[in-house]
Amino acid sequence: MSPSKAVPYKTYLEENELPRAWYNMRADMEKKPAPLLNPATLKPVSAEDLEKVFCRELVKQELDDTTPFIPIPQGIQDFYRMFRPSPLVRAYFLERALGTPAKIYYKFEGNNTSGSHKLNSAVAQAYYAKEQGLKGVTTETGAGQWGTALSMACAFYGLECKVFMVKCSYEQKPFRREVMRTYGASVTPSPSMETEAGRRINAAHPGTTGSLGCAISEAVEAAVSKDGFRYVLGSVLAQVLLHQSVIGLEAKKAFDKIGEKPDVIIGCAGGGSNLGGLIAPFMGEKLRGEADYRFIAVEPASCPSFTRGRYAYDFCDTGRVCPLQKMYTLGHDFIPSANHAGGLRYHGMSATLSELYAQGLMEAVSVEQTAVFEAAEKFARIEGILPAPESSHAIKAAIDEALRCKAEGREKTILFGLTGTGYFDMVAYGKYNDREMTDSIPTDAELEASFAKLPAAGR
Amino acid sequence: MSPSKAVPYKTYLEENELPRAWYNMRADMEKKPAPLLNPATLKPVSAEDLEKVFCRELVKQELDDTTPFIPIPQGIQDFYRMFRPSPLVRAYFLERALGTPAKIYYKFEGNNTSGSHKLNSAVAQAYYAKEQGLKGVTTETGAGQWGTALSMACAFYGLECKVFMVKCSYEQKPFRREVMRTYGASVTPSPSMETEAGRRINAAHPGTTGSLGCAISEAVEAAVSKDGFRYVLGSVLAQVLLHQSVIGLEAKKAFDKIGEKPDVIIGCAGGGSNLGGLIAPFMGEKLRGEADYRFIAVEPASCPSFTRGRYAYDFCDTGRVCPLQKMYTLGHDFIPSANHAGGLRYHGMSATLSELYAQGLMEAVSVEQTAVFEAAEKFARIEGILPAPESSHAIKAAIDEALRCKAEGREKTILFGLTGTGYFDMVAYGKYNDREMTDSIPTDAELEASFAKLPAAGR
Repeated sequence: MSPSKAVPYKTYLEENELPRAWYNMRADMEKKPAPLLNPATLKPVSAEDLEKVFCRELVKQELDDTTPFIPIPQGIQDFYRMFRPSPLVRAYFLERALGTPAKIYYKFEGNNTSGSHKLNSAVAQAYYAKEQGLKGVTTETGAGQWGTALSMACAFYGLECKVFMVKCSYEQKPFRREVMRTYGASVTPSPSMETEAGRRINAAHPGTTGSLGCAISEAVEAAVSKDGFRYVLGSVLAQVLLHQSVIGLEAKKAFDKIGEKPDVIIGCAGGGSNLGGLIAPFMGEKLRGEADYRFIAVEPASCPSFTRGRYAYDFCDTGRVCPLQKMYTLGHDFIPSANHAGGLRYHGMSATLSELYAQGLMEAVSVEQTAVFEAAEKFARIEGILPAPESSHAIKAAIDEALRCKAEGREKTILFGLTGTGYFDMVAYGKYNDREMTDSIPTDAELEASFAKLPAAGR
Repeated sequence: MSPSKAVPYKTYLEENELPRAWYNMRADMEKKPAPLLNPATLKPVSAEDLEKVFCRELVKQELDDTTPFIPIPQGIQDFYRMFRPSPLVRAYFLERALGTPAKIYYKFEGNNTSGSHKLNSAVAQAYYAKEQGLKGVTTETGAGQWGTALSMACAFYGLECKVFMVKCSYEQKPFRREVMRTYGASVTPSPSMETEAGRRINAAHPGTTGSLGCAISEAVEAAVSKDGFRYVLGSVLAQVLLHQSVIGLEAKKAFDKIGEKPDVIIGCAGGGSNLGGLIAPFMGEKLRGEADYRFIAVEPASCPSFTRGRYAYDFCDTGRVCPLQKMYTLGHDFIPSANHAGGLRYHGMSATLSELYAQGLMEAVSVEQTAVFEAAEKFARIEGILPAPESSHAIKAAIDEALRCKAEGREKTILFGLTGTGYFDMVAYGKYNDREMTDSIPTDAELEASFAKLPAAGR
């Protein structure tokens, strides 16, 4: 019963070992991600364009693709110390249950009240908004983790927080709303009738359950129409991947500490922030030719940006108020069927990850929802953590990889990102428990129709 | 902004520093807790009596008041390593917000899927049931943490798990039920019509929202009427306090590591398991005359066993099927008003803690619910963790103590137990957010009426 004593179940870094700078993958990319385009001029956006929407310091980070390390301000490091380091966990019991020769590790980001890795970027974005002297921020949230994380950060730094929550999540997760309210945020189901963008989407798609793309449009509109407010985003953007690099930096240092090295690194991908953060320093080594790793993005079959999308310029939001970004996209009008992995419902993907994928530096797989929940239940019972549906996509792929190792008799070391817990996803788990869960995959014709609406710059 | 660097925000023990034996406070008590009495004979219970209801090894632990250290089997240590050590946290930001010269520490037990310290004993009890070759266990749950913890442990060790859940919690926390189901448990609202005890209580108190006392009776009856089943209990019993001593043992070692020592130790008290576990090794020092500490039990004003109860023999359950225990009690028929701190609704108290309190070795205070939620909201916003309502009783008392230090200009070191998170308590938080929460305190006449029903042995 007792597993090897060589590596502890959990490795925590000491406080003085925590990262003091974020790592910016783009600095080591020979071919950089394509620039964001101004939707009116179709020219690369300027800092001035972006500062109308985003905080100044975050714009600087967004546009900086040459500085490899960006110092983490002390005020952010202090908040990080309240919930970081996160543990690097050796999944001894899962290995035993699968009978695999592979070593399985996961970096667990769920041990904070937001329930996920999202807090890493929320803290940074709220900090910079406060430093700029703003009154508050607006944002969208899908599954609710990002909204919760931002509410927590805003409460801490003393900022107002207005959250547009994708309607299907708002209805499935009433308790998420209460958490955000407890932290003093206001929460509106999206599409709402409060914004021009929301009213337009409601008119075009009556009864829609919403999408991240819609909610983004509403939040941006609400930010630019209010004095002293800016918009903040929980994924997709380069700045978010930058902040999330603390995940990978900690993981890498923990691996060094225990004298191990992952062969395969797996993460779920919605907008790409957790995956981009987890792989960052490892990808850096690969880009600099210092080491090799396999990277696998896992996405839901219901919203398969990498595996079935187009690599093209597209709007980041349904309302087309945001810059255009070159990315793997299903089309800005694509609304996935009501999938419970709310955080993975985004039509596009991080431009940085898209470029890495296009260059063949990263792989992608898509998995179906019922198989994901089966993996989630197995993991919960064996490893004692009830995972978020989003994270469970990575669990499913990691289990598949471990079973492949078993079949091939290969002793690989697998690292996956366990981004969060599923405590607010019990409606979805209930459906799974009651065997009422189904899969839904867009048809080729649906995707073609969506691709046809890509902006001219993207064809 | 940056706090002192001397002590880290969080102190984690290394895996090889984790406790390998539990500590049994009773061994160091000169005057022991009074023995349990057989309800039929009113004589001290024998191991044989108890083994009809409880697992063999647990009965041994229950009756052992002389062995100070009891080794933790490897199979339990392994599971512990999946979710332990828990961090000892320095509440730098709370200190700053209160402007207190006091140092505030908390031992945080909420970072596991059960959401609380309950898992420490659930793992132990399920392990011993499996070792005995049983098919399954039955139990009751109030707030749901214990039921969740037991479901997790049973899933891990491969046991059936039947949970009677106090009806008001069952209705307020539908998602708790789904978590338990995800772990393969069956959950029944109590009082139910499935047991003799449940039917009797339903007839006597139509429309009752239940209590832990009722649910215990049902679970015991279900266990003894099924082959290969035993009953397990999440609090009150000496065995549970024994298992929970890992909290205090870890905390004490962490304090030694950082070179500090608490002056005051505060914990919420329902049945007493978290408080008994947290204070155990410190109380041991006090009992042996090696050091002095103040210990404060915090209970809800709606269910004030220590502060307004009688120290007398009473039934542990409403249905009077369990042994009698000498304890601070409000009477086995006492049903508190529907208080949201579901885990603190028990009419009695650990016999060990009761005896320590009777000897003047421990203090107790009671606090009202709205003040508790006010403290909870403050704590969530400042320290970034949304606490369980139960735990928030300790937060409230710790804040009061820190403010007293401020008023008196005294630099004390306060340790409190943050037993769990409130992620499944959002109905209660929602009521607080909507300013619909009220306090409810039993009248003297109500308590007198309840005391009048104490068994003869208790008067």
